[in-house]
Amino acid sequence: MSTEQAPVSLPFVGAKKTTLEHPLGPLTASEILQSSQILKGSWPAEVTIQFKSITLQEPNKAELFPFLTAEHSGSALPKIDRRSFVVYYIKNTDKLHEAIINLSTGQVESNVRLGPNVHSNADGEEIIAVELAALADEGVKAEIAKLQLPEGTVVVCDPWIYGSDGINDGLFTDDERFYQCFLYVRDPKNPNEADSNHYAMPLTISPVISAETMKVTRIDYMPTGADHTTKEPSPYKVQPANEYIPEAQNLRKDLKPLNVIQPEGASFKVSQFSEQGHTVAWQKWTFKVGFNQREGMVLYDVHYDGRPLFYRLSLSDMNIPYADPRNPFHRKAAFDLGDAGAGIMANNLQLGCDCLGSIHYLSAVLNDDKGEVLEMPNVVCIHEQDNGIGWKHTNYRTGRAAVVRNRELVLQSIITVANYEYILAFQFNQAGEVMYEVRATGILSTQPIDEGLTVPWGTVVHPGVLASHHQHIFSLRVDPMIDGPLNSVVYDEAHPMPRSDFNPHGVGYTVDSTPITTSGGYDLNYDVNRTFKIQNSSIKNPINGKPVAYKIHVPPFQKMLADKDSFHFKRAEFADHNIYVTSYRENELYAGGKYTNQSRGGTGVRSFAARKDNVQDDDIVVWVQFGINHVPRIEDFPVMPVEIIKVALKPVNFFTKNPAIDVPPSEQSFNKSVLAKDSAAQHHQETGAAVIGTNGDVCCVKEGSKL
Amino acid sequence: MSTEQAPVSLPFVGAKKTTLEHPLGPLTASEILQSSQILKGSWPAEVTIQFKSITLQEPNKAELFPFLTAEHSGSALPKIDRRSFVVYYIKNTDKLHEAIINLSTGQVESNVRLGPNVHSNADGEEIIAVELAALADEGVKAEIAKLQLPEGTVVVCDPWIYGSDGINDGLFTDDERFYQCFLYVRDPKNPNEADSNHYAMPLTISPVISAETMKVTRIDYMPTGADHTTKEPSPYKVQPANEYIPEAQNLRKDLKPLNVIQPEGASFKVSQFSEQGHTVAWQKWTFKVGFNQREGMVLYDVHYDGRPLFYRLSLSDMNIPYADPRNPFHRKAAFDLGDAGAGIMANNLQLGCDCLGSIHYLSAVLNDDKGEVLEMPNVVCIHEQDNGIGWKHTNYRTGRAAVVRNRELVLQSIITVANYEYILAFQFNQAGEVMYEVRATGILSTQPIDEGLTVPWGTVVHPGVLASHHQHIFSLRVDPMIDGPLNSVVYDEAHPMPRSDFNPHGVGYTVDSTPITTSGGYDLNYDVNRTFKIQNSSIKNPINGKPVAYKIHVPPFQKMLADKDSFHFKRAEFADHNIYVTSYRENELYAGGKYTNQSRGGTGVRSFAARKDNVQDDDIVVWVQFGINHVPRIEDFPVMPVEIIKVALKPVNFFTKNPAIDVPPSEQSFNKSVLAKDSAAQHHQETGAAVIGTNGDVCCVKEGSKL
Repeated sequence: MSTEQAPVSLPFVGAKKTTLEHPLGPLTASEILQSSQILKGSWPAEVTIQFKSITLQEPNKAELFPFLTAEHSGSALPKIDRRSFVVYYIKNTDKLHEAIINLSTGQVESNVRLGPNVHSNADGEEIIAVELAALADEGVKAEIAKLQLPEGTVVVCDPWIYGSDGINDGLFTDDERFYQCFLYVRDPKNPNEADSNHYAMPLTISPVISAETMKVTRIDYMPTGADHTTKEPSPYKVQPANEYIPEAQNLRKDLKPLNVIQPEGASFKVSQFSEQGHTVAWQKWTFKVGFNQREGMVLYDVHYDGRPLFYRLSLSDMNIPYADPRNPFHRKAAFDLGDAGAGIMANNLQLGCDCLGSIHYLSAVLNDDKGEVLEMPNVVCIHEQDNGIGWKHTNYRTGRAAVVRNRELVLQSIITVANYEYILAFQFNQAGEVMYEVRATGILSTQPIDEGLTVPWGTVVHPGVLASHHQHIFSLRVDPMIDGPLNSVVYDEAHPMPRSDFNPHGVGYTVDSTPITTSGGYDLNYDVNRTFKIQNSSIKNPINGKPVAYKIHVPPFQKMLADKDSFHFKRAEFADHNIYVTSYRENELYAGGKYTNQSRGGTGVRSFAARKDNVQDDDIVVWVQFGINHVPRIEDFPVMPVEIIKVALKPVNFFTKNPAIDVPPSEQSFNKSVLAKDSAAQHHQETGAAVIGTNGDVCCVKEGSKL
Repeated sequence: MSTEQAPVSLPFVGAKKTTLEHPLGPLTASEILQSSQILKGSWPAEVTIQFKSITLQEPNKAELFPFLTAEHSGSALPKIDRRSFVVYYIKNTDKLHEAIINLSTGQVESNVRLGPNVHSNADGEEIIAVELAALADEGVKAEIAKLQLPEGTVVVCDPWIYGSDGINDGLFTDDERFYQCFLYVRDPKNPNEADSNHYAMPLTISPVISAETMKVTRIDYMPTGADHTTKEPSPYKVQPANEYIPEAQNLRKDLKPLNVIQPEGASFKVSQFSEQGHTVAWQKWTFKVGFNQREGMVLYDVHYDGRPLFYRLSLSDMNIPYADPRNPFHRKAAFDLGDAGAGIMANNLQLGCDCLGSIHYLSAVLNDDKGEVLEMPNVVCIHEQDNGIGWKHTNYRTGRAAVVRNRELVLQSIITVANYEYILAFQFNQAGEVMYEVRATGILSTQPIDEGLTVPWGTVVHPGVLASHHQHIFSLRVDPMIDGPLNSVVYDEAHPMPRSDFNPHGVGYTVDSTPITTSGGYDLNYDVNRTFKIQNSSIKNPINGKPVAYKIHVPPFQKMLADKDSFHFKRAEFADHNIYVTSYRENELYAGGKYTNQSRGGTGVRSFAARKDNVQDDDIVVWVQFGINHVPRIEDFPVMPVEIIKVALKPVNFFTKNPAIDVPPSEQSFNKSVLAKDSAAQHHQETGAAVIGTNGDVCCVKEGSKL
């Protein structure tokens, strides 16, 4: 990222000091306002600021680590100044800035103009303005008129981040910041239904809008055949609708309620470590939860039974490149965090809809484009879930079974990024494991295709509607502190022993461990069962002498298909390796770089790793990649069933035995299960051994009625 | 498998015909008795029979398919004779036989002596007899005496299937059927605790017992160092115990109950299609459930919304080869189905312990070694579970969210095979998906190791205790009938487009499909996102023209590490490929062959596939392999937290839209969630925005109290 110092003065603005907040507490509403006021005060009154994000500037680790250590030991806490990080434009210009404001002193500590070719994320107000601008444009109206849509038809505009293509290919330029708009209609037969699924009715007209001027700069026609040919809009053929709203369905009538009841309440405790920051304690786990515009949920200072595990955990970014090579689709490669923001796109979660059971919600405050406070209610839900059996053994001699259930704590956020949804969750269990689960759902990004045609880069999901193949590639950032701040990544591999006198039958195999010494990208290899572990080489397991470690379970994925010279590849710097290991540096939080919108590469984790730093027994960061090559099925339309990907961090020789061995046994007096009373075998049949010899004598209906 | 016709007469025994049973109904108690009586009647009275298994001989597909078709259409049902399949020994001999008995006619239709070198599975009575024989042996007693164990110490014997090594290596022979016994002691400080974890206290003495004579034929000493050296037993050092029973733990006290309540009952219906066979109907799914000695649960005739999907689904076998190349460990390579039996080892599941919610149990009847009926209560539990969100989309313009939950139906069995447990479950969801989930838990198979030593083929999990690395390799047998009996397997791959005028920016990619034409073993390849699909090429999706299909989601695993010349490799004929595709042949149900005990290979799926049959648009069988290379962690002891592996079969262009689109919306009035009342933020803090703007006004405690 190239930067130039902004030609602005940095006056001291004597704003009132805030009350002392914890250094990891997300910005409070008053701190957001304080930040925007200080920033605005640093410019002449006639300058209009478009705020992109006002978030906590987290303290340097050199400052924060001693603070957290003191906090855990109950010692006196060092004072750390509160700072905010502000990204903003001078409105209707390309003048992008980032500033750091010391909230404790009220001082603008730095204020830098970025660029050229550095562009900030979209924001909600801007997206709505783009929609309006596109649909109000006379040229766009003229193109729409050619469709001869039925009277009353509603045209809908989805603005997309413009992406980057050949840049200097002479055709187009993306030096400027643009939006590419995709147009659709709501079902013309039902135009008053505001929740009609317009993605079933894509148009061929795609206006491009300058984010600077908010004017249409070009109108693309989309190719609808098997080649690059485009044609002028012609009269639109109305196809049947394909709605997802329940009133458009013949709903199933045979699903009975399933309620999760915690009669004594939930087992977790939530407290506030600051006005906006929360500490969660559950089953020997403690950690802090923050929330920001870009990453959404961030976990800090994760401990198990008092032992440090992770300094910081967050989804770092994701990239979704599409397979269609033709204009304008070839630029589709969204970074949903860097281009939009998992925090700002977070859903307001609804009790009894998005989670089941006894739920605790966390709300947040973020900023709008004017630097005002944006209330973000219920952006995180916290609840427990039962995930089947945790462990079991039956002594076949005595018949005695020992069994425990697998209770999990879930912290879930759901983000909507235009057509698509991601359900993002950190999960903890009683066996010392942390999971990160992504559920991909929502609506496919669609485009028109000539009826009856098929193409090998997409799937027809509705008459005249193509859903292009695309990849979802995620990067989870793990800043570890396994039993302390200095860690290493090693990988274990299993190899057959050669035949020899020692291995005369050819059945032996061994596992060896290789340390990663230099920052870089590393890959899974199932042929040798390669398993990456984060370990503390200086702390040995007291029983078996192995270094304490956490291993990374991550499913494989096809790496980015776009070629190495493409901007897709250059920009998504995490998309080429399962694991990146880098040395810790301040402000290296984002695998795709800090500013991903129309980015050109060189600012993400591949570049961090290229320093070839030592990463052995050092302060390191581990970037865990995973993903889906989403080859759409027609079953993924109009809304796709969740596709679930799960990453797990599991202890390896960290404890001295199964850490869940002390979970109370799974017993009917606690679980209060019942015999299914509505199965036909019980109600409608008199014959046979339908229900034999269960322990159901404990009258379950009666027990249930006590709740 | 070589066979020879048994030199026995096949008299017609005029037993009474049973009442008409459905051809897929598991044998009834009276059919089991009828079978053993007929079989015993075919031998002179003085011959004692040791029954290994008496199970349903399923009808040939040529007979059964028309029957099932008639059943679905409500037509007259063809008559199909009931037959049982009986495996037995002449007791205390190596004379293994298999017989087919026509229960409808009372006739022994075939009765064949198998061998040489064909051995049957273990059975419960035999295992107990081996334990007793080993511990009663004077030679073994003399070896144990050398340990100078504290007075009162209880020695425990775990008989293991002997396995196969070099066979003709001159050292040992396994022409005979043997058991290799592993000895342990219960905690000498607590010898009256029958559930003491003896796996924490392995001995070095390993008697070998002839299954024919029930005599000790050899006593092996185990190596405890880093090489093959063995030494005579010396005085035993008592280490601390490592118990798993709850009374030995300081149990957690902060886990609150979590109850799953279905106030209107469960949504599934179970009925009987025969005395022992059950039909399950749930959310457009219907299928039949059978149960047998070897496979446990078997699903037949699986339909969704009236459309045929799977003719038969079952776990076919599993193999667990160990990494230690030294005698006697080099023979450890258990087939837990073929050598023991997932049916006969199934746990009696307990209400409120093994499943949560509204549970329906299925019981079964199997046989004992005398041909008597063995009641197997509660071997399958059926219940619904909530698996988070099923799909969601929020229209960001209106703020309206459409969301459904992901209800699943689970059929679960748990098997105990000596030290180890597997939790095996078929799962169905509302999006037309079938999953097969394996949870590996239980206790590691342990062996003694000199204190302070580490070896690269295992992990020290307790002082003086080594758990060797081992692989768990499973084979799920899928007999498909996707929209009809003739199916193919194709695999899709995603490949980058070359740079060209068509793909000027290097970002395009395509997906192509390759049909498998010849039976064989095939492998995953994540670098090209290779995805296997079972399709019916003759039925096209009405919207997009693609053949209807189900794809196979299966996680990768390291293939068998034992070399290709080893008996481990030769025997586990499924362990070398992710997918096998074979043409359907009667009686080809078991991926490792019908008789796996001390097998020598040549009778499993690799051999079936070697026929190089046509498998395109034909009656085919798909064998799906998956597994774990289990490199033990100390956290896996004394009982390991579940390691979960999941296979999914998902529709691809089989429906015309998301089949779960008609699931009723997830609503609080149905789900009755509550705000967590026990979190500290609610109870103990007055300040801040702990709970903001939820829909919690619907009083949840009151609603809960109505249950």
